[in-house]
Amino acid sequence: MTQVKADISMSLDGCVAGPDDNPGQGLGVGGEQLHEWVVGLASWRERHGMEGGEKSADGAVLEEAFATTGAILMGRRMFDLAERPWGDDPPFRMPVFVVTHHPRETIVKDGGTSFTFVGDGIERALELAREAAGSADVSVAGGADVIRQLLSAGLLDELQVHVVPILLGGGVRLFEGLGQDVRFEQTRAIASPGVTHLKLRVVRP
Amino acid sequence: MTQVKADISMSLDGCVAGPDDNPGQGLGVGGEQLHEWVVGLASWRERHGMEGGEKSADGAVLEEAFATTGAILMGRRMFDLAERPWGDDPPFRMPVFVVTHHPRETIVKDGGTSFTFVGDGIERALELAREAAGSADVSVAGGADVIRQLLSAGLLDELQVHVVPILLGGGVRLFEGLGQDVRFEQTRAIASPGVTHLKLRVVRP
Repeated sequence: MTQVKADISMSLDGCVAGPDDNPGQGLGVGGEQLHEWVVGLASWRERHGMEGGEKSADGAVLEEAFATTGAILMGRRMFDLAERPWGDDPPFRMPVFVVTHHPRETIVKDGGTSFTFVGDGIERALELAREAAGSADVSVAGGADVIRQLLSAGLLDELQVHVVPILLGGGVRLFEGLGQDVRFEQTRAIASPGVTHLKLRVVRP
Repeated sequence: MTQVKADISMSLDGCVAGPDDNPGQGLGVGGEQLHEWVVGLASWRERHGMEGGEKSADGAVLEEAFATTGAILMGRRMFDLAERPWGDDPPFRMPVFVVTHHPRETIVKDGGTSFTFVGDGIERALELAREAAGSADVSVAGGADVIRQLLSAGLLDELQVHVVPILLGGGVRLFEGLGQDVRFEQTRAIASPGVTHLKLRVVRP
């Protein structure tokens, strides 16, 4: 059965972007440290058309997430931030559904990636992503606001938080505004010096 | 050489006590969930004069912290909250130094625990704890404010955060007010379903 899963890197103080996070700055001050564990990995580099890199437990975690995914859901802000760096051959290689207030024509890129803009809400975007995924999973690429909305609405099945041992001292808090009615069961934890991968099943009331 | 170490349980959203944390409520709404991983352990129960309990990796983590400790530093608020439950035979069995604005006579309890109240600042309290510890370590029992002050002043050598997979949705944030100048090296991570123990060495600039 299709699972709706999100993966996100978070600092020890609970932030997924540093202070002064705005479209010009991407991840805010210091926020790029959140992804240092990813960018040296062989699996990430291969997917971004680069050679070399490290094969490690962290890489297996990343590969696992990609392997079971048939479609991606993301917020409009994340799309805006990343569209240029992704270029003509984005690393997704599957249909991506972007939640937005300003729908536009679907963009088809090289390598199997397409971006479909959904203007009638996150639930509709998720519905389309589920259809596109077939029996595979839907991956939520972020940002934090999309993950929070899905958690609040009880629409997320699994959250994997990659805890990076840094403080950002402000910025975007992953769980801002969520409370104790959101409950998890931790089903796995994989640790390496630079990051700890906590896999959390969302417990339905 | 004496190490100054702190151990504290934290929710996924970065809190060490839940909302409405006040002296009558202890750990705030939902905050007692932070310590569920501890209270069933054989080593904790033995130390609190109870029989039975579980022997597990979590217990080894707890025992390790106790084994190398020669003196304890804590905040006044933690002392006030816990004095009554601790009773005549507190679980420390070593000298405890309490940072306070209202010093009083030293209290000597059964089993080797004494409480010395230090009115001239956290650095002086730490100095006295170091003297009492000899070549053993000083453990910082909390609360969050004491840990934050030591981190800010560059006086903490090691922080072990026990990350519990719950959201508290507010309350006392462990790293409130700290920024990117505080840096860690993660030296170990031990995971079990209910908690992930992250051992962090404080990196001196």
